[in-house]
This record gives sequence, structure tokens and C-alpha cells, in this order.
Amino acid sequence: MVHITFKVNGADVQISANEGDNLLAAAQRANVAIDAPCSGNGACGKCKVKLLSGALDSPQTRHISDEEYARGWRLSCVSRVMGDVTVEVPDIASAYRSRMKVADISSPRELEIFSRTKSDIQAAGIEFGSNLSGVKVTMAAPTTDDTMPDNERLIWALREVTGAEKVTICFYALKKLARVLRESDFSVRCVVEAEGGAINVLDILPATDATPIAGLVVDLGTTSVAALLVDMESGAILSKASTGNGQIRYGADVINRIIESGREGGSERLQRAVIDESIRPLVGQMCASAGIGEKNVYRMSLAGNTTMNHLLLGLYSEPVRMEPYIPSFFHCDDLRTASLHLGLHPEARLILAPNIGSYVGGDITAGAFASMLWNRDELSLFIDLGTNGELVFGNNEFLMSCACSAGPAFEGGDISCGMRATDGAIDSMTIDPETWEPAFTTIGNTEHPVGICGSGIIDCIAELFKAGVINGKGKFNRAHRRVRFDENGMGSYVIAFKEETGAVKDVAINEVDIDNFIRAKGAIFSATMTMLGSMGMDPGMLEHVYVAGGIGSGINMDNAVTIGMLPDIDRSHFSYIGNSSLSGAYAMLTSMQSRQKVDELATTMTYLELSTEPGYMDSFVGACFLPHTDANLFPSVNV
Amino acid sequence: MVHITFKVNGADVQISANEGDNLLAAAQRANVAIDAPCSGNGACGKCKVKLLSGALDSPQTRHISDEEYARGWRLSCVSRVMGDVTVEVPDIASAYRSRMKVADISSPRELEIFSRTKSDIQAAGIEFGSNLSGVKVTMAAPTTDDTMPDNERLIWALREVTGAEKVTICFYALKKLARVLRESDFSVRCVVEAEGGAINVLDILPATDATPIAGLVVDLGTTSVAALLVDMESGAILSKASTGNGQIRYGADVINRIIESGREGGSERLQRAVIDESIRPLVGQMCASAGIGEKNVYRMSLAGNTTMNHLLLGLYSEPVRMEPYIPSFFHCDDLRTASLHLGLHPEARLILAPNIGSYVGGDITAGAFASMLWNRDELSLFIDLGTNGELVFGNNEFLMSCACSAGPAFEGGDISCGMRATDGAIDSMTIDPETWEPAFTTIGNTEHPVGICGSGIIDCIAELFKAGVINGKGKFNRAHRRVRFDENGMGSYVIAFKEETGAVKDVAINEVDIDNFIRAKGAIFSATMTMLGSMGMDPGMLEHVYVAGGIGSGINMDNAVTIGMLPDIDRSHFSYIGNSSLSGAYAMLTSMQSRQKVDELATTMTYLELSTEPGYMDSFVGACFLPHTDANLFPSVNV
Repeated sequence: MVHITFKVNGADVQISANEGDNLLAAAQRANVAIDAPCSGNGACGKCKVKLLSGALDSPQTRHISDEEYARGWRLSCVSRVMGDVTVEVPDIASAYRSRMKVADISSPRELEIFSRTKSDIQAAGIEFGSNLSGVKVTMAAPTTDDTMPDNERLIWALREVTGAEKVTICFYALKKLARVLRESDFSVRCVVEAEGGAINVLDILPATDATPIAGLVVDLGTTSVAALLVDMESGAILSKASTGNGQIRYGADVINRIIESGREGGSERLQRAVIDESIRPLVGQMCASAGIGEKNVYRMSLAGNTTMNHLLLGLYSEPVRMEPYIPSFFHCDDLRTASLHLGLHPEARLILAPNIGSYVGGDITAGAFASMLWNRDELSLFIDLGTNGELVFGNNEFLMSCACSAGPAFEGGDISCGMRATDGAIDSMTIDPETWEPAFTTIGNTEHPVGICGSGIIDCIAELFKAGVINGKGKFNRAHRRVRFDENGMGSYVIAFKEETGAVKDVAINEVDIDNFIRAKGAIFSATMTMLGSMGMDPGMLEHVYVAGGIGSGINMDNAVTIGMLPDIDRSHFSYIGNSSLSGAYAMLTSMQSRQKVDELATTMTYLELSTEPGYMDSFVGACFLPHTDANLFPSVNV
Repeated sequence: MVHITFKVNGADVQISANEGDNLLAAAQRANVAIDAPCSGNGACGKCKVKLLSGALDSPQTRHISDEEYARGWRLSCVSRVMGDVTVEVPDIASAYRSRMKVADISSPRELEIFSRTKSDIQAAGIEFGSNLSGVKVTMAAPTTDDTMPDNERLIWALREVTGAEKVTICFYALKKLARVLRESDFSVRCVVEAEGGAINVLDILPATDATPIAGLVVDLGTTSVAALLVDMESGAILSKASTGNGQIRYGADVINRIIESGREGGSERLQRAVIDESIRPLVGQMCASAGIGEKNVYRMSLAGNTTMNHLLLGLYSEPVRMEPYIPSFFHCDDLRTASLHLGLHPEARLILAPNIGSYVGGDITAGAFASMLWNRDELSLFIDLGTNGELVFGNNEFLMSCACSAGPAFEGGDISCGMRATDGAIDSMTIDPETWEPAFTTIGNTEHPVGICGSGIIDCIAELFKAGVINGKGKFNRAHRRVRFDENGMGSYVIAFKEETGAVKDVAINEVDIDNFIRAKGAIFSATMTMLGSMGMDPGMLEHVYVAGGIGSGINMDNAVTIGMLPDIDRSHFSYIGNSSLSGAYAMLTSMQSRQKVDELATTMTYLELSTEPGYMDSFVGACFLPHTDANLFPSVNV
């Protein structure tokens, strides 16, 4: 038994370990946050720690220069503890900042999803537009004969211009009022929020000020957080960025985070982790890149799963994970973002996409809305592949949802070389059926692959299967330059040799990875079949399947059918719709009617509990095969 | 020229001075807060500083023990700077805390004014009662067959019990919801705010919890802050306390504070001074004495003059003091106290008594309401003697107000031995017309007098005048054991010799003090006459005069007439109604209808600007005599 001391932000965290244990794994056990987006395969080089004293068996890698190595820097994921050891861990917040990615919004591809959302909802007859706007107004300056106080002067002028029956001025605006009126010769631009015949003045700017009236959209995922800064008047995207969820050090899944939140001070810790380490840095970065102040963000909408919603608000969440699984809320009245210390305009409201159960949350209601399946006669299926899998099935007459424990494989979790769909991830590949040699693309076209993301894994398994490298059980058929078997007989396929990439490990996929993925795709497929079956329907009746989530935009639908993840229907019925949770939240922010519609969908959507559904387990077992134990379900797959 | 360094809270503040300058005066010039409630006459012993180095000519007084003197402690008010010097100044916040006075609410006298206010408004047909109340409700616990989320469960239960059409749950309550429901077996007591057919849940407590639903009442004066903690359901007073206004170090009067607030960061400084050094310590102390938490304070009302209202909110206030004298507001929509970081329940509203002009503020509208003059057929006059003098004249048909620059003499300001009406102040006295020897009482029946407050000064001047010690101009007629003339011929009367009291100075009143007081009473009397005159009326038509303010409850109305401060009418027409600003604010908090009535009064009350009123200056000059230059106005005064 050896002792490890982690020095984090000036504090000491100690844990016991066995000699030879992996340092990164020990840190995770100790709840010490070390950034490891490539899941610890030595590829990304982000998990550096500084050895202060003690014995660590740790090779130098291409991510560590000679000078750094001499100063004690090591990659924790390739370090083995050989005795008592003390290491310094860099500040996680800065690590998350370094992982933050601001999108290039000059690229039409980045924004396509939002312009499509906008045109989709308009085509559905839903009004685009919020109740926030800028109103210019000019007043006569006061004199000794006209001594009306500033607030009444503005109220009268605004009533005249807008026809509003009632005008109120929020405290933030009242504080600026006297100075802005006098500095701008009583000619101002007011940011107003309209409701019925009344308007509330949120801000007062000089009439010459053209700062956009901004809004914030957040997709709060268990693993990742994506956000938009939006012009509330036009719907234009001012900035787009994403980062990791700072809560990840308290557990990769929602269950561990809820357990942590139930501890003394835990809900506060979880809340601050996501707000201070993820959302606020995102806002800061996006505002800087758009050239506006954080106080110019007047509204916010957020879509996240039920647990993320609860942890964001700092709620006691134990009842969500324990039978009978009761959340504090499905629908939550608008909050002030100031209650969460988000640093936006102090009166900015937070609109939350509604949950419909403990395991189907706002990310799904917002996403299902964005898919528009609720607006079509045709029967459609919406599948969100996040850290878990959720499905919505229906049309303009009914909606049914379910959640399945697919696990994090689609986002690269539980896969030895798996990673999220970010720079360096292999996102598509083919394998030559003759030579078994691979060809692949990486996100960002990086020189070397760092790992493999969901869409890449689908391709990899499908191609291995089609080329006969693996069989229907996901086991390797025979050895090859790229196919190796270890001492236990476990096979693996090397996609990129470390000699080629300069990494410390090959990028490879092994039978455990394949098995994990098969179980994940089996969960999705059996959920699909069970849900359809509960309505007496079969996949042939599906007229559209929308796939959403962080699996990677390059998802090859034919390969997804080949491995038996998606039903074997005409491939033209499939669409990848990207981060539908984000585009749904965008709609809720910029279109009051959309927001209303999402709330409506949530109240009408039914929930099917798979675990108590007869036949689900059998269906799942049958689906844990390539493509399926019942080949008749996949007539077009000929391997 | 010498240099003084004040060490305050770890910072150095430096100022130049002339050799021989008074240390307290130099500190005030440098904006260094030294507590000096007795205005620097060596009587109270509160202005202690610690000499660290340099030359100070400073006698030891009874307030400083031998040991303290040896350790460097000096009274700054009796210290003269004789060379470069460095002194340490104790923390002002603790000084204010030490000046805080919690009233003994077991004494009926302390609470009499509030029970009178309650019965007065009820007699006027105004409903007593706010829209805050406690509602008990019991729910069925959730099961696997009944998985309604917590918020909906509570909402349904409350709709059932209260019949409310709409129920919302504030964020503070939502955060507690899951835990309180489960800890109290789904049997809770909700603090709710009703509005129309809707109720908003502010708090959720176990059904067994009997904590009062508390409210806070504040009278925010330029010099003093008085406060009440109230049970919102019964109107009972839970605690009562007062302290100094922490802004005082930025100037004794409103003008200097506004100037300071216009400097960089000034409005924030002034705001924090009154909130963090006065209001929050009062709240903390009152809550502790009532045994409740600050988060159990669900609403607040405040009455203050226009400048105090603006500085409290942190507004830019320069336009209030500069022509054409425009405030940011007369009436302000309810704010959340959380915007001011008051530490109360985060949704607690702040109700502000409305201003009607830059010099007639919420203290007067609230005070005039509490006087009930607006509810009577008889013509009445309301006089508030605060740091300034404000008057309201009228009846149930009209109300007219004015403000006069009486200065701070009624609160003991500008009087050499003057002090506020607190412990140790001489509040009433007589002088033997034969022997010229005085007899007096002090507030708190202290062993020695510390100084003299407003009511004591009125008695003193009236008695000196009646005994022939001074003439109508306020000059001393001849020398006596107690009457002395200095080298410039200025006379003074010693009320208590320092040998008798153990102080470093006699408690005395001199011709400058008397002159200051005569100008103050002259301002009040001429304002009364001018306002009556503007309506073609004379004092004989006054059926009631209500005197309010911090002058001291012992005010002798006959003496006030003798010196020509109040008009010479039947003495039974006078009433002292104490701190009417506080009792008015109490009514606004505990009775929604009273609040509405005050707002109504404010919109109908007219304002008479005395400075532009013909004859006001002549009237003022005529009133600067004892009792008046026109003896016919005071037929009953025979001296």
C-alpha cells in the first residue's frame, strides 16, 4: 500500500493505492479533477501533473519536452505509482478554459442548424420573436417649471411612443437613469420587455448606442456544455462556444453526481462547478468575442437533462435517483439568472426546457421540438445519443418517450481509445476488405489521431464486420498485422500505430470496446423496438428517424444499420440533426411561441418505463449481436 | 503645517493641519469616521483614538484610565495636534454597533405609538393586514404509482386549501422543497404572498415550525436610523432598535453626502455605509433578540427623506441638489431587498414611502399619514423636526407641505453641548427665577449629563428667558455664578459644572448656541406663518398641531410657545407624536390599504417652495427674537 498526495489549489488530497496503480485512476477515485478528454490513453497530453517528490514510473511522451520532464511534468494517465508520491495538479478551471472551444461563426456549417430551426418553426406557423426590444425615446429636459422626476418623465415618454398602458423601470435601469438621461441630452434607447399592455424597462442606453440586445442559449450536457450568444431582435448568432461540464470531477454519470450533491455542501459544490467553471467562462468568452458586456445579456434559455437542471439550481436531488424517482419539478417558472450568480443582466430570466420524468429531461423536450416530428402526419422517431440514450416516437397526434441505459459509449466513454467529437477524433473510417488496412478522417483534420469518437466507432465496427475481421459477436476471426491477441486471447485492431502517430499508445479498438458498444447500440435498438411494439407498430412504419447528439456529425447511417443500431429501413429516412437540445433551446429563447409549444409538448408527451415493459430485456439480449440475433430484422445487411 | 496620519482598517489616510488644530475636526475634514455623538465636547468618551507616534496635546479625562492613557489612548475631541502625528482609529462599524440601542419592548411606553397607529388607522376604516400569511398543508407522499414532482404536488395541495387559481413557488422555496417535504412527512407550513387570485410561496417550513412571519420597518434619518421587527400576521412588535447613520462620516447634512456620492465610486460608498454599518447591524441585532433568522424577514418598508432614499438605492443624486432639483423618483415600484444585499429573504420586497419633492420625502408622507390629519375635518399642522424642518398643513380636503432650512439644532447639532436624544442627554430642565440655579432630568436617568438634546434646549432657553437671564435677542443680561462672559464678551450659562460631572468641560449653553437655536425656531415659525398666510389663514384657525421628530419626547409645548417656536394657541391643541416616520412606515408594512393611502396622499399633497414665496424672508427675520419681534403674535407670553 502506498500513499498519494495531490496538491490542488493549495489543498492536500490524500489517498491510498496499490503499488503499480495508475495515477489518473487514483485521482478520479479521490475526486481530484485532472483534465483527461482522451479518457487516459496518452493521446491528448492534457492530464499533466508535476511530480514534487516520490516514485512514479512514467515515460516521457511527445507531449512533454525534455525541459518539462526535467522539471517534473508527467502525464498522469501513463504514470504508475511505485511508492509514496506527491504531485501538484494544475487548476481545473484553467484546464476547462483551455478546453473551451469558440466556434468560427463565419463558417455557414456552424450556423446552419439554427437557420434551419428558424425556418422550420416559421414554416410550422410559429411566430419568431421574443418580447424584448429596443425603443428610442427623446424627452424634454427638466426646468424649474417642469420638475417631474426622471422616472415619471421616462414613463410618460415611453407610454407615448409605445402605447403601453403601464411602464415600470427595473432597479438596474433606475440606477443608471439620472446619469444616462443627462449624458445623452435626454435622448435614450431603452431595452424593454413587453407583457400584455405593460412594458418593463430593463436597461437605458444613450440613443447612439447600438449594442445588440443579447440572449444566452445553453445546452447543459452531463459531459459537455454548448452555448450561443444571440441577438434577441434578429435571432442572429453572435458567438458560439463549447466546453466541458466542470461537474465531471464529481462523477462521469448523473448518479455519482447526485450522491455527491447529497453530501454536506454538495449541492452548492455541484452548482458552482458547472456555473463558475463552465457557463460563466463560456459567457465571458462569447461576450468578449462578440464585443458586448455580460450585463447586455437580457435573457437565457437552457436545456439539460433532469439531473443537470436540478444540480444547476442547487437543489437537493437525492429523490431523483431513489425510488420512486421524484424530481423537484418538471416545469419550473422562470427564474432570475441573478439567483444563480450568472453575472448577466440582473433581471435576465432563465427559461428552462421542461422535464417530463427523472430520466427524460429538458434536453429531450427541446430536442424533440427542434426535430419538428410533432408537426408532421408521418410517424417519426427521434433518438438523442448523449451520455445516455433517449427516444421520442410519434407525430402530430401523439408523442411517447423512453430512456435507455446506453451508457456513454456514443460519446467515446467506456471505449479504451474513445473520446468526444472534438479535434483529433477519428470521426469516419473505412477498412479495405482485402488488405484490412484502414483509411480515416479526423475532426479538425489534425496531423495525428488522438482517439475515436462515436461516429468513428460505428464505422470501425461496421467495416470490421463487413470485411470479416470480426464476427457477429464482435470477436476477431484471426490475427493480422493490425489484429493482435493478448495473453488472455483478447483481440484488438490497431487503427493507428503509435510509431505512426508519435503517441505513447496505439489508437486501437479491442473486444471489450466492441462489446461495450454493442451493448449500447443494442439498448438503443431494443428501446426502439419495444416502444414501437407497445403501440403495435413495426420499424417499417417509420417514415423518418432523426438522430441527434454528440456522436459526431459524420455519422454514416448505412453503417449504423449494418451494426444493428438503427432499424433497417430506407436510408433516406434518416437525418442527423446535430445538437438538437441546443437548437431547441435557441428556439425557446428567440420565439415565445416556440417556448409555449415546448411546454405543451412536455405536458402531452407520455413516458414509457422500459425496465417494467414486458419483453424489453429479451429484446435487448437479442440486439447484442451484429446486426441482430434475428437476421430477418436486417434483410438489407448481407455480411 | 503638520501632517496627520490616520490608520483606519489597515489603510493610511493623511491630511495636513495647522499646529494646534483639533484632532477630531481634522479627522472629519479627512473623511475619517470617528464616533462622536456628543459632537466633541469631551462628554461621551466615544471618540477615543490611539496615539502611535508624534506630538498630541491631550489631557487625560475620566473616560480614559491610567492604563489606557499609558497605552496611548486619547479622546480626539480634546486633542490638539502639536507636530506630525500618527493615530490609530478604531473600526467605525464596531463603533456604530456599540452605539446601537435595542429598546426594552416590555415597556408599554416604547410600543404605545404603534398600537395607537394601529387603532388610528382602524378607526379611519382602513383595513389592517398585509397579504403575507402562513398556510398549513399536508400532502400524500409520492409512490411509484403517484410520481408527480414535488412542486406540482405542493401547488395542487395549496390550490385545494386556499382556493387560489394560480400558485407559484419562488426559487428560495423551490430550493428547500424536496428536503423539507421529506423531513416533515409532507406536512408543511408555507409562507405565502397573495395577489389577486394568485399566491406565491415564499418559504416552506415544517408544519410544526412556529417562527413568526417577520417584516422590517426602517426610519432612515440623516443622523439616526430607527427600526422595528414586526410580526406580519398580528402586527406585534418583535423588536425595536436604533443606531447612527453610517453615512455621517461623509457629511452631517444631505448636501455634503450628495457631493460625496457624485465622486468616483461615491454612490456605492454611501450606499454600503448605511446598509452595512447601520441597517444590517440593526437587523442582525433585532433578529437575534427576537430569536428568528434574517431569512424569516419577508418584507420591508422604509421611510426616509428624498436624499436618503436615493443614497440608499445607490443612485446618482447630483440632480437632487442642483437646480432644477430633480430626483430620480417620487414613487418607486417595489424593489427586491436582495438588490441592496440586505440579507433578508431573497424575495422580500422593499416598500418605500413616496417622496413629493427634493426636500419633502418619504419620512414626511409616512409621518403625515401617521398623524391622521388627512382624516379630519379640522385644520391641522404637522411639524417634523428632524435634521431639517418639514411641515404639512391641511385636513381631509387638502394637504400642503413645505420644508425650511432649520438646520440640525433640534437634534443637538450646531450646539456646543448639543446631542441627540439618547442616554445622558438633558431632556428637560427648569431654572429657579430667584437663584438662577437649574434642575434637570436626563434620558436614561444617567448619573451625569453628557450634553443637551432638543427638548432640553427649548426648556433651557425658555427658562433663561422667563427668569430674565437672557433678553429677547438671546443675550445674557448680567454675570452670575453660572453666567460668564469670555474675553470677547460672549456670555454663557453653565448647566452642569465639570467639577460636578467629572467631564473635561462644563455642560453649558452660550450666545452662539442660543442664536443658532433662535434661527432654527424662527425658520419653523415663519414657515408656519407663511404657509398659513398663503391660504389666507392665521394660527388661530389651527385646531391641532402635531410635533414629530427626534427632538425628545419630553418636549414642553408651553416653553416651545414661550420661545416663539410654535404659534400661541391653546396648549391643548399640541401633541408630540414621536417618530411618526417610523410609525407611518409601520402602517405601510402591516396594512396594504395604508400603503395605498400614503401613495394617494403623496400624489395629492402640494408643495410650497418657501424660498420663492413673497414675505418669507421678512417673516423669518421677524421670528428671530424671543418670542417674536411682533409681541402681538404671542399674547399669552408675558416675560
